[in-house]
Amino acid sequence: MEQKTFQDYYPEDVSHCYGCGKDNKHGLQIKSYWDGEETYAIFNPKPYHTATKGYVYGGLIASLIDCHGTGTASAAMYKKEGREMDTKPTLRFVTASLHIDFLKPTPIGTPLEIRGKTEEITDRKVVVTETVSAKGKVCAKGKVVAVLMPKNML
Amino acid sequence: MEQKTFQDYYPEDVSHCYGCGKDNKHGLQIKSYWDGEETYAIFNPKPYHTATKGYVYGGLIASLIDCHGTGTASAAMYKKEGREMDTKPTLRFVTASLHIDFLKPTPIGTPLEIRGKTEEITDRKVVVTETVSAKGKVCAKGKVVAVLMPKNML
Repeated sequence: MEQKTFQDYYPEDVSHCYGCGKDNKHGLQIKSYWDGEETYAIFNPKPYHTATKGYVYGGLIASLIDCHGTGTASAAMYKKEGREMDTKPTLRFVTASLHIDFLKPTPIGTPLEIRGKTEEITDRKVVVTETVSAKGKVCAKGKVVAVLMPKNML
Repeated sequence: MEQKTFQDYYPEDVSHCYGCGKDNKHGLQIKSYWDGEETYAIFNPKPYHTATKGYVYGGLIASLIDCHGTGTASAAMYKKEGREMDTKPTLRFVTASLHIDFLKPTPIGTPLEIRGKTEEITDRKVVVTETVSAKGKVCAKGKVVAVLMPKNML
């Protein structure tokens, strides 16, 4: 059985994010999974997602870290509460802060692997650290501080 | 006479960035200008650049801060050297680190104003702080540490 992605569980009204909404036809449609205690996503940049020739544009890397981070936060909070991701109330997160260190140019034309780790989890906040790798080499590191989405955004 | 944008001065081989390259047909084509000692860019998100309904996707805000930051870094370094932006050698920057604090949800459907300030400038590094505002209200703050592009990327 194919594992469902975190984003498959997002209710329809929060499935239009350009980064990770499965219902945003123009978007990146990032898909995140558990892998043991860590999470991961694989993303194939389009040929036009360039910075300079041959390298991936930093804003895309920021987007991958951002959306995989909030996805990881959501999955981690459900896990903490001992609930499945399709149960109510819905736990969706927004980014309070995002930090990225670009360690080396990220080559384009190869799948990128984004891996996330939950560093801290409280009642309404999750801190996720991430790496973005190409061909097994870490090209960027990121940190997302995610907070539960305000009710007026849900 | 219309003011040229920083990006208009980028040589052709570094004008394909998805965020700010004037030759990237698929990209955001961010355009940055001087306004006294500060810099600014105005960007109109597309209707599909959503996070949740009515709000701008954080990855786009990260992209605006990133590319306006490296553009500001470039312009500031030329200014420091007392040179016009179309003179050689070319001064193009890459992002070493990017930090964003999302202060409040950013409404979609209105132009965003990105403003940049050079906080620090050395021989090869420029630190730029930025704000992203909608309808006169600051929705996000950012900081870009930009370093001169390695010669093998130019």
